[in-house]
Amino acid sequence: MSGTDEFSLIEIFAEHFRAPVADVWLGIGDDAAVTSLPSGRDLVTATDALIEGTHFLPETDPRSVGHRSLAINLSDIAAMGAEPHWATLSLSLPSGDRDWVTRFAAGFAALAKEFGVTLIGGDTVRGPLGASVTLLGSVPSGAAVTRSAAQSGDRLFVTGVPGHAGAGCRIRMGALSADDPDDYLACFEYPQPQVRLAVELRELVTAMIDVSDGVAPDLARLLAASSKGAVCVIPGLGRLEDDFGTDEAVSLFLSGGEDYELCLTVAPDNVEQVQSLAAAHRIPLHELGVVHDEAGISWSHDGVVLPTPAEAFSHFGAGDE
Amino acid sequence: MSGTDEFSLIEIFAEHFRAPVADVWLGIGDDAAVTSLPSGRDLVTATDALIEGTHFLPETDPRSVGHRSLAINLSDIAAMGAEPHWATLSLSLPSGDRDWVTRFAAGFAALAKEFGVTLIGGDTVRGPLGASVTLLGSVPSGAAVTRSAAQSGDRLFVTGVPGHAGAGCRIRMGALSADDPDDYLACFEYPQPQVRLAVELRELVTAMIDVSDGVAPDLARLLAASSKGAVCVIPGLGRLEDDFGTDEAVSLFLSGGEDYELCLTVAPDNVEQVQSLAAAHRIPLHELGVVHDEAGISWSHDGVVLPTPAEAFSHFGAGDE
Repeated sequence: MSGTDEFSLIEIFAEHFRAPVADVWLGIGDDAAVTSLPSGRDLVTATDALIEGTHFLPETDPRSVGHRSLAINLSDIAAMGAEPHWATLSLSLPSGDRDWVTRFAAGFAALAKEFGVTLIGGDTVRGPLGASVTLLGSVPSGAAVTRSAAQSGDRLFVTGVPGHAGAGCRIRMGALSADDPDDYLACFEYPQPQVRLAVELRELVTAMIDVSDGVAPDLARLLAASSKGAVCVIPGLGRLEDDFGTDEAVSLFLSGGEDYELCLTVAPDNVEQVQSLAAAHRIPLHELGVVHDEAGISWSHDGVVLPTPAEAFSHFGAGDE
Repeated sequence: MSGTDEFSLIEIFAEHFRAPVADVWLGIGDDAAVTSLPSGRDLVTATDALIEGTHFLPETDPRSVGHRSLAINLSDIAAMGAEPHWATLSLSLPSGDRDWVTRFAAGFAALAKEFGVTLIGGDTVRGPLGASVTLLGSVPSGAAVTRSAAQSGDRLFVTGVPGHAGAGCRIRMGALSADDPDDYLACFEYPQPQVRLAVELRELVTAMIDVSDGVAPDLARLLAASSKGAVCVIPGLGRLEDDFGTDEAVSLFLSGGEDYELCLTVAPDNVEQVQSLAAAHRIPLHELGVVHDEAGISWSHDGVVLPTPAEAFSHFGAGDE
């Protein structure tokens, strides 16, 4: 697109972020943005991209693409127990389609406002449709939650209902069907990252990871980073099992992907407080099992140990974290 | 690409950035990176992307693409008078081509090391070939140089020799030829952003912008942001004029693009010190003219005012900043 086109497209985003923000000295419009981080806090940085054909279909509502491009990064920032502040967006467009950009920007801005995120800059280039977002947040110095500090004896939890977003994705692709698909589609197209709960959990968990590829592969990453293993039980799958049968429900839970929930490990003494916080936020929290020192994860369902190693589920994942 | 492929590709980058860095608490490998900014400094953030077909040809050496993907962002950070610290990379690849990634990473890492930049995270996704980099830097609080504070009476300068990179780009595309093209090609494929000089100029300039689309459009942006105009003279173009003739040389100088030099405005009292600093760094510094209060820019060459408004040159630009 020509320079003029690009600058008018940037205006579409700038419109949503005109209100002055105390810690943003210079936002969209100069060579780079200038912001100030309060002293005593560490900077937390996540980058994640969505590409047409890989992460969304050409007919996808651009509002969903805008929402998801930020949500996947909010989820990464949440997994560190951090608060999100500022985002940059690199948007690649085959043409200067104002309508597409307007709808994308509306989806992006609505979620940004919900979590107090300001878009401070970026780049619009001509190319295949895709969006890469870098999200900047902060935590009190030294307080970031990693995926590598789970301890033997910690109890394992996952927020929300993993599998619903994966079901929505497969319904959208025509690979699954449900009598009432709207909730599943909403979980996939407008995921709600657990930002607020994550900040409150920061001091109470030993390790945390966001569930983007599925509970099985992402929990395996957390435990591998912590040099630990676990014995895990798949919780009751409710509507997933009613709608799709047990085998499909288990597969969706373990490796459906696209959930953007949190998997966390908690020392026994803190379990009650963690459960109370989740309840106060009305966020489901399923207990999965207990961490132990030996490598390897066993999953069981209804008292039967699943024969497939959890690692095998990772090929269902989207292939990017 | 599968999860496994992605993780082994990330390793290629991680290899280059294994050495511990004091201000990086958590780099590649968790949900997000954690770094610490010294107190009393503002965070400076730039994001810029390169897409195959738009910014580089399929046959381009991946080392050049890796170098340029960082250089274009270093130049934005430099234009703020800021020091670069940390980068994230979002890399889209049609396949898990290890050789391409290895060469890209080598080009990226060599330039990163030259300027003390650490790659702290990112994302590798399957999609059309492209790289989006977010570069984080800092300045002392309140000291960032914007493009909007040029004053009437300031003198205008540009670093380096704008036009050489644009000539290299056109030579690579087969649109120009030169007897000895190597210097031009090097300017295009391995631009050297003016990071060190820019930091020293921070207290001495009133406004600064990086020249990525060409002197004419980028100077026009600086002056428009400052609500100023200028009378400008094109300096002697030396080898550009010898190799390509006057008209082509003037066009390359004004709007060749890809230079990643700096355009700056300086109060008369500071001119001598700015010139001394550039000389100490052995960086050419061409004086272009004087800023005035009336809108509009006139360009002249060899005593003749160019008939075309400077804005008309912006269509030569790459269309992204």
